[in-house]
Amino acid sequence: MAKDDKDWKAEAKRLKQKVRKLKERLATPAAPAAAEPEAKAAKPVSPLAPKGGFPMLPVIDGVEFAAVGAGIKYANRTDVMLVRLAPGTAIAGAFTRSSTRAACVRDCQEKLAGKVDARSGAAIVVNSGNSNAFTGKLGQQAVDAVTGGVAKALDMPASRVFSSSTGVIGEPLPYDRITAKIPDLVAALDDDGIEMAARAIMTTDTFPKGASAEIAGAGGPIRIAGIAKGSGMIAPDMATMLVYIFTDAKIAAPLLQKILSAQVDDTFNAITVDSDTSTSDALILAATGRSPAAPITDARSPVARAFAAALRSVMMDLAHQVIRDGEGATKFVEIRVTRAASPEDAHKIAMAIANSPLVKTAIAGEDPNWGRIVAAIGKSGAEADRDKLAIRFGDVLVAEKGWRNPAYREEDGAAHMKQDELLIQVDMGLGRASRTVWTCDLTHRYIDINADYRS
Amino acid sequence: MAKDDKDWKAEAKRLKQKVRKLKERLATPAAPAAAEPEAKAAKPVSPLAPKGGFPMLPVIDGVEFAAVGAGIKYANRTDVMLVRLAPGTAIAGAFTRSSTRAACVRDCQEKLAGKVDARSGAAIVVNSGNSNAFTGKLGQQAVDAVTGGVAKALDMPASRVFSSSTGVIGEPLPYDRITAKIPDLVAALDDDGIEMAARAIMTTDTFPKGASAEIAGAGGPIRIAGIAKGSGMIAPDMATMLVYIFTDAKIAAPLLQKILSAQVDDTFNAITVDSDTSTSDALILAATGRSPAAPITDARSPVARAFAAALRSVMMDLAHQVIRDGEGATKFVEIRVTRAASPEDAHKIAMAIANSPLVKTAIAGEDPNWGRIVAAIGKSGAEADRDKLAIRFGDVLVAEKGWRNPAYREEDGAAHMKQDELLIQVDMGLGRASRTVWTCDLTHRYIDINADYRS
Repeated sequence: MAKDDKDWKAEAKRLKQKVRKLKERLATPAAPAAAEPEAKAAKPVSPLAPKGGFPMLPVIDGVEFAAVGAGIKYANRTDVMLVRLAPGTAIAGAFTRSSTRAACVRDCQEKLAGKVDARSGAAIVVNSGNSNAFTGKLGQQAVDAVTGGVAKALDMPASRVFSSSTGVIGEPLPYDRITAKIPDLVAALDDDGIEMAARAIMTTDTFPKGASAEIAGAGGPIRIAGIAKGSGMIAPDMATMLVYIFTDAKIAAPLLQKILSAQVDDTFNAITVDSDTSTSDALILAATGRSPAAPITDARSPVARAFAAALRSVMMDLAHQVIRDGEGATKFVEIRVTRAASPEDAHKIAMAIANSPLVKTAIAGEDPNWGRIVAAIGKSGAEADRDKLAIRFGDVLVAEKGWRNPAYREEDGAAHMKQDELLIQVDMGLGRASRTVWTCDLTHRYIDINADYRS
Repeated sequence: MAKDDKDWKAEAKRLKQKVRKLKERLATPAAPAAAEPEAKAAKPVSPLAPKGGFPMLPVIDGVEFAAVGAGIKYANRTDVMLVRLAPGTAIAGAFTRSSTRAACVRDCQEKLAGKVDARSGAAIVVNSGNSNAFTGKLGQQAVDAVTGGVAKALDMPASRVFSSSTGVIGEPLPYDRITAKIPDLVAALDDDGIEMAARAIMTTDTFPKGASAEIAGAGGPIRIAGIAKGSGMIAPDMATMLVYIFTDAKIAAPLLQKILSAQVDDTFNAITVDSDTSTSDALILAATGRSPAAPITDARSPVARAFAAALRSVMMDLAHQVIRDGEGATKFVEIRVTRAASPEDAHKIAMAIANSPLVKTAIAGEDPNWGRIVAAIGKSGAEADRDKLAIRFGDVLVAEKGWRNPAYREEDGAAHMKQDELLIQVDMGLGRASRTVWTCDLTHRYIDINADYRS
């Protein structure tokens, strides 16, 4: 009796997990057996993590992954990932605007701005445990050694090897530990290795983050698969934490970049965990062109629009997973501002609410303390008219016309706050601009994690 | 045998305390005896509170204080203060720019902008426990009832009665409880009552805040005494929490306002507990003109300069006390930014560091995690050159020339962090602008206080 489709999918998922675990055991340096249960106990998975664990992601033709444990900071886990991209791959990126951004971020930006030999392949190498930020000339030296080593091993120009580093700021990166592992990484390259890669780049993350989408192109499907890391120091500025997205679409780099850039603002730039912007934020999108579908050449064509929408859904999914893994988070909060006087005002108001420690601690305490939302609107610097704005928890109208809705009952607000996923709606009643952002609550665990991050 | 001066001062202090306690017992509604120890246990005094308790403040001729317990929110404590100011008193003020500021703030602003009859006296009435913000038309109604009631009882125009309210936002103020207590307040007016007034306006504060200064005028001394409340929702914007300062200087309102406005930026606008700006921030400065000293009429005169400096010292002292009572604070932190490209940049950098949850939690954990200072500088939006900036903990040079100072030893940074009072110095190496701001750390207690503020 033949299994139905769903069973096969489950079976494939089971096997992928098995393969991953076996490979991970191979890739991880041995450590005292007793240490592992302790480490796991210290880091419970976020209660907001997606059910069902890491999703089944499609294989993207022309993309291979590998991960190893190089012992940069963490013991007993993988901490370097390598991605090999087939010749002809187009690359686009978005990066933090932080003025103290890391050497690897500047290096990626320079390489993307330079001339590209389309015949050569490309690669991405990422380590966790050390951000290589504010490390002076040693920083660029480390980037050159790692990207140069990978270029040599994979026989491609160093200008096509992109790197990221994430972890503590200001400590010199022990890059020889990475270069020493390049042969192992190359040997382990596998088109099925995306989950291992997602795990290798985690820092304070409690779960690996992946998302995918597929659209019908002319002549065949076009697939997108992406991974991300991020949990704290999340207030992306024109970019994000670390995100790598792969597609088999046939598309030139300038159009790829254009479509990517158009999606950043409503996805990664619309989330905040703690208002702190990282020095390492980077998003790299690679298109291998291996799909049987016809090339995407016109931004206004139906297939380009479908591709942009699919890419956006992958980016949004990853961005939401970052919030679900926000340091200490117990609530996933959507803040929806409507009818603001301008798009800038809508963004200011939404972010003032999302970043208010008082709003975030009230949410942690399940207290429908809407007065703090009023205060956040007031401090935002945006145009506001007390008598025109309305505030809702979910669909419960809490306040309008300059005071508390007479029909509002505290128990209705309190019931909404008890949920894991909250919606705060603010209607400014002034104009036509709207903005939706996502954040999480501020809990004791955020302080536990960050008061002794380095110790 | 005559006691020396110092002994008399101690004796006077002891007696003042005794008087205060007796009056407070009179003013406080009876409550179950068992409740008090519990309430006290729940609210330990900040470890950063000034040693020696509330300071000895000079009596300001022409100023009288009263406090009562009206039961607005809190049981078993005073929650309304009244100040009567003698005829001829000049008033100046500074207020929050929040677009959702409370009715009483707007009322004060309108009254200060209006015409003043110099022959009438003036009054200030303040309640804690309810901020009367976002309470619609009821808000102005409450302000009118309270200021009108005080005006009638003290026989002065309502346009000379200023009010503030502090506490929860969005709940209608039960103002009849205040108006019912006006006769008691008037009966209790006493020129020695400033500490009682400081206690009546506390919300999450753990100690009452007072400061004073005295200068020599032509013909006699000029005295200044002020009180403040504030602990959370502290990121003043052109004003502050609640601050009332009194002087016997003979000075017209426009010059008084000019001198006051010039001091706000470097004092109350240079502190932040949690980046959240209140809807009630108000600072009122009253000059009774009762000093025997000659009038202050010229802003450039030596006496005007001395007065401005003395006023500034009182304001700075009160501002620092607010930080010392920051919700959950265990560290008092000075952030000194020098050689920034512009004054705006210097402010942006200092506040980005002061408001960074990651910097604040690292300080709470006594972790010299200077990388987070680098990240905060990077996100601030101010001009920065990685290779020119230098970071110091106290006098310990931690980082310069784009990386960690090779001579820096982690234990030196760690030793500085163990102190109660910290100094973070950032030299941008770009221009001539500097800015000093003050903040506190972010601890579990901040979350305890704010996750269940209303419950």
